[in-house]
Amino acid sequence: MSSDEGLTVKKAENFSEWYQQVLIKSGFIDYTDVSGAIVLRPSSYAVWQTLTYAIDAEFKKVGIEDTYFPLLIPEKLLRKESEHFEGFVPEVAWVTEAGNSKLEERLAIRPTSEVIMYANYAKWIRSWRDLPLRYNQWNNVLRWEFKHPTPFIRTREFLWNEGHSVFASEKEANAERDEILGIYLKAMKDYLALPGIPGRKSEKEKFAGAVASYSIEMLMPDGWALQGPDFHNDGQNFAKAFDIKFLDKEGNLEYAWQNTYAISTRVLGVIVGIHGDDKGLVLPPKVANVQIVIVPILKKENSAKVLSYARKVMELLKGYRVRLDDREGYSPGYKFNEWELRGVPLRVEIGEKEVDSGKVTITRRDTGDRETCEFGNTAGEAGRLLDAIHGNLYARAEAFLKGNVTIVSTYGELKETLASKKGFAHAPWCGDVSCEDKIKEETGAKITNMPFEQGKLVEKCVYCGKASKVMANFAKSY
Amino acid sequence: MSSDEGLTVKKAENFSEWYQQVLIKSGFIDYTDVSGAIVLRPSSYAVWQTLTYAIDAEFKKVGIEDTYFPLLIPEKLLRKESEHFEGFVPEVAWVTEAGNSKLEERLAIRPTSEVIMYANYAKWIRSWRDLPLRYNQWNNVLRWEFKHPTPFIRTREFLWNEGHSVFASEKEANAERDEILGIYLKAMKDYLALPGIPGRKSEKEKFAGAVASYSIEMLMPDGWALQGPDFHNDGQNFAKAFDIKFLDKEGNLEYAWQNTYAISTRVLGVIVGIHGDDKGLVLPPKVANVQIVIVPILKKENSAKVLSYARKVMELLKGYRVRLDDREGYSPGYKFNEWELRGVPLRVEIGEKEVDSGKVTITRRDTGDRETCEFGNTAGEAGRLLDAIHGNLYARAEAFLKGNVTIVSTYGELKETLASKKGFAHAPWCGDVSCEDKIKEETGAKITNMPFEQGKLVEKCVYCGKASKVMANFAKSY
Repeated sequence: MSSDEGLTVKKAENFSEWYQQVLIKSGFIDYTDVSGAIVLRPSSYAVWQTLTYAIDAEFKKVGIEDTYFPLLIPEKLLRKESEHFEGFVPEVAWVTEAGNSKLEERLAIRPTSEVIMYANYAKWIRSWRDLPLRYNQWNNVLRWEFKHPTPFIRTREFLWNEGHSVFASEKEANAERDEILGIYLKAMKDYLALPGIPGRKSEKEKFAGAVASYSIEMLMPDGWALQGPDFHNDGQNFAKAFDIKFLDKEGNLEYAWQNTYAISTRVLGVIVGIHGDDKGLVLPPKVANVQIVIVPILKKENSAKVLSYARKVMELLKGYRVRLDDREGYSPGYKFNEWELRGVPLRVEIGEKEVDSGKVTITRRDTGDRETCEFGNTAGEAGRLLDAIHGNLYARAEAFLKGNVTIVSTYGELKETLASKKGFAHAPWCGDVSCEDKIKEETGAKITNMPFEQGKLVEKCVYCGKASKVMANFAKSY
Repeated sequence: MSSDEGLTVKKAENFSEWYQQVLIKSGFIDYTDVSGAIVLRPSSYAVWQTLTYAIDAEFKKVGIEDTYFPLLIPEKLLRKESEHFEGFVPEVAWVTEAGNSKLEERLAIRPTSEVIMYANYAKWIRSWRDLPLRYNQWNNVLRWEFKHPTPFIRTREFLWNEGHSVFASEKEANAERDEILGIYLKAMKDYLALPGIPGRKSEKEKFAGAVASYSIEMLMPDGWALQGPDFHNDGQNFAKAFDIKFLDKEGNLEYAWQNTYAISTRVLGVIVGIHGDDKGLVLPPKVANVQIVIVPILKKENSAKVLSYARKVMELLKGYRVRLDDREGYSPGYKFNEWELRGVPLRVEIGEKEVDSGKVTITRRDTGDRETCEFGNTAGEAGRLLDAIHGNLYARAEAFLKGNVTIVSTYGELKETLASKKGFAHAPWCGDVSCEDKIKEETGAKITNMPFEQGKLVEKCVYCGKASKVMANFAKSY
């Protein structure tokens, strides 16, 4: 790899520029002629695909079924729930022509699918026997934001799941929340090596049309928060707008209770930001499309011998996603740099020394630690190291997250935290939107959520000094 | 199930009406307010998801990688390859507005992704070391057809894979064809229990922009052909339009060679049409979201005992996708009819008789055959029966397909075949488009493909009587 192909900026010095460079130079994504729409190249799509397979399997275990609803939504349907419509219409992309014809009615490209799903739910649900109905979709949605786009973090098209459940009682609907957030948190931990802070959104920040919203909040290296997966308790709002009723066991016609939940490709931005370093991407081993790269150190006089040994090592490692980089015309150093930039978790080097001594040399991407092991132990050692990398990435990310939650009692401390240390200020709040608004106005920070895991409640609201009701996390947020 | 919930028409008497009824009444799909766009409910989406997982695993084995490219394509990009543009523009849906703004340039919802992918390929490919590049996408596409829509067969939105490969030589590119068609044929056989006829499309019927197209043709019960998966050899057409060049080993700058290939949700229409019967859907066991339904026959005095036994049977069957239908308020007969309509491959009945004798009664959906087995053998017997159902469905479908290919020598025989027996007329053809056009004009049949497996070449073209070059399949086609 030549020097201009590598990163020209350090992560700690200019995170934003580093982020853009690492995404493109590592081949993780690319841009297109449509602003705010990106290409997920194989290494990023593999992360998403692996994550979705894992989450989908967990969904199925608890009885959630997958479906597919149309991309296009008639305008009149979108208008049915007014709060929802007002929330989304500023960023809807409209289809108005097809072939050479003008359409009679504009069709929205789904920004989310509540309305088209619920129009059908109303037809399908008749009695308590049809409930619960727990349907999910894995699809693409479009939200035409006019702010400056940032790959994964703010893109006009993204991939996600959208779960839309219907229950016969409020109690059952409420019970779904911990199940779903638990699945997301576990998948984030087990696959992406990412921790998050689950909690409830404020009224001001909740989803358009929901009764209560919940989120898992993450933290980027620049100290800005980023909302990950979310869960919305819709109460009977949509049921009333879409006439989703059922006959209960007593024969009464009742409105149903609904929830929605989602995880999106946004999380890919977080793994890039959190795990990456000045050499490039660092991919969590479970989701890396190449987990191990074998680089043979070839010299003219020994290349046949070294390549033959490298192929045997590859055979040993066939239980992993492994690539042998036998490209001609590139030096080992060039290849080392390139695979580091791409974030491959383990590099196995094979040179004459390894062949003659019956060993292999393995280097970890996360720490740069290098070790030698016996040929016969290669697979076991690789497995141990991949697990160790995953554990280390998670531990580092968790330490960073926890180290950036500062418990504050006074407005001075809150402002100080947001200005200097960044991250989350965990502060007492009276629950009043006027305090929330003022804090946002004066500091730029919003309430990311009110964490389920609460610090000890400080008595007085950080802003107005009246009695506080809850500890809320304030942060500048993407 | 009450009588109006079941099918009111027989498949052999009115296939088109039967097809529409079975799709809706079985809960396989539903319609929406957007004409030509359907909802894939859990039982149909499960078929697609299982099929895509299986095909994707095979793709990965041969080195194909998954990606995701944006949904929206700028008009100027779509215009870059003129034949391709002319082919698709009559059915493109256009986004012209976003939020409250008019867009400066219309954006097409992808009808296929050649142009947006290849604009990027041109940036990524520099030398022979970057080749082959074998990328695939699983996504949704829109083609705004103005003909009467039919679910799966002709829908405005469908799901598919689109594979787009780039090779350094024509020879390598050509070698991909059998690999891909082989993967599709095997997945169709192993998962959908569907056979097909692979072959080459005529010049007239090939893909817009391709040098040569290949297809797998299937046959619907009404004797009309339906094109399944396809593969297109694009030669250097797109490489020239999009400037996809590479430095070869000798240092010459050369245009690359490309292929594309796809399988879509169309095949779901074929499994419904081919395997279904007058009772409803018959789902192939490998892709059925419910493979086995357990229906307890409950009476007031024995319900606890029977349910407890049914749950033990469910436990035995946990290796399968099994559902216990313990809904109250529906008779066993109602449930039997409903699960038959839905196409569940096996039904296990548990009544007092079964409990007392330590047995279970199992009924096959495909044949209606009913048998009793020992409690302890339930899982083994269920596995054997599921395999037998798959085998039977494939054998029936294959017999139907083979039985409807008629070798003809004369135009009279061809017309007679198309008029009476329907299916494919396997006929000698001179290769001239004027004969192909005339036959279509006079009989309504087109060349579906020229099968790889050729019957003995009859000397004279079935239409003009000049020397024939190939045996082509003529059929009326969806």
